[in-house]
Amino acid sequence: MIVRTLAEANKTNRRVVSPDGNWESTRLLLKEDQMGFSFHMTTIYKGADFYMHYQNHLESVYCVSGKGEIENLADGKKHPIEPGTIYILDNHDKHILRAFEELTLACVFNPPVTGNEVHNAEGAYELDTEAV
Amino acid sequence: MIVRTLAEANKTNRRVVSPDGNWESTRLLLKEDQMGFSFHMTTIYKGADFYMHYQNHLESVYCVSGKGEIENLADGKKHPIEPGTIYILDNHDKHILRAFEELTLACVFNPPVTGNEVHNAEGAYELDTEAV
Repeated sequence: MIVRTLAEANKTNRRVVSPDGNWESTRLLLKEDQMGFSFHMTTIYKGADFYMHYQNHLESVYCVSGKGEIENLADGKKHPIEPGTIYILDNHDKHILRAFEELTLACVFNPPVTGNEVHNAEGAYELDTEAV
Repeated sequence: MIVRTLAEANKTNRRVVSPDGNWESTRLLLKEDQMGFSFHMTTIYKGADFYMHYQNHLESVYCVSGKGEIENLADGKKHPIEPGTIYILDNHDKHILRAFEELTLACVFNPPVTGNEVHNAEGAYELDTEAV
């Protein structure tokens, strides 16, 4: 059994701040924990509006607080995001995320993130060669 | 891309209420979604105090709200649970969960739950034969 707290993790390199100023994310559970997924608490700053495409990962995102929307670039549909919404990127979906208010999101990745990834120019995490 | 809401899911058989009166859980993401994990929003009712042992699943549990504790039966240690706490059952840990206030928990299971499981007498989910 492992027990961690967000407050403690925020003081370590588990907390990652995006260079583009759109988000920060604290990785509470990583590949090294050998659970087969990783779990991140992510904050999307108010006003953020950016493209993402996780070519190498499946991701689910549950909204704990805030208000925003996700635009699915495959069909152009916009889905509201509010507390209780989950969006599931089961098809490496290209999407735009917008935060009308600061969003707090619980994110799960498969394969698990190692903690060393950064978003590349395509809005994706590179796949760590040890990640699969 | 799949988008769901807790409010909608609560009106369906995704919401499961425990026969022992300790908890309810709404499964927002199940094995059929083919993400390799399942994601549940679970409420532990105030005053609940019960044993669990997931023999067949790994589980991580993040506390969104409430107050309680988890007791690790391997070493007798009790860990407080409050918003921002995650506990990770990486070793099929036998544990007791207590809710001093109603707990709202974001739970991830690997292998993913199918939605048909119930806790058995050992406090575990039976492993669906299709689950692995």
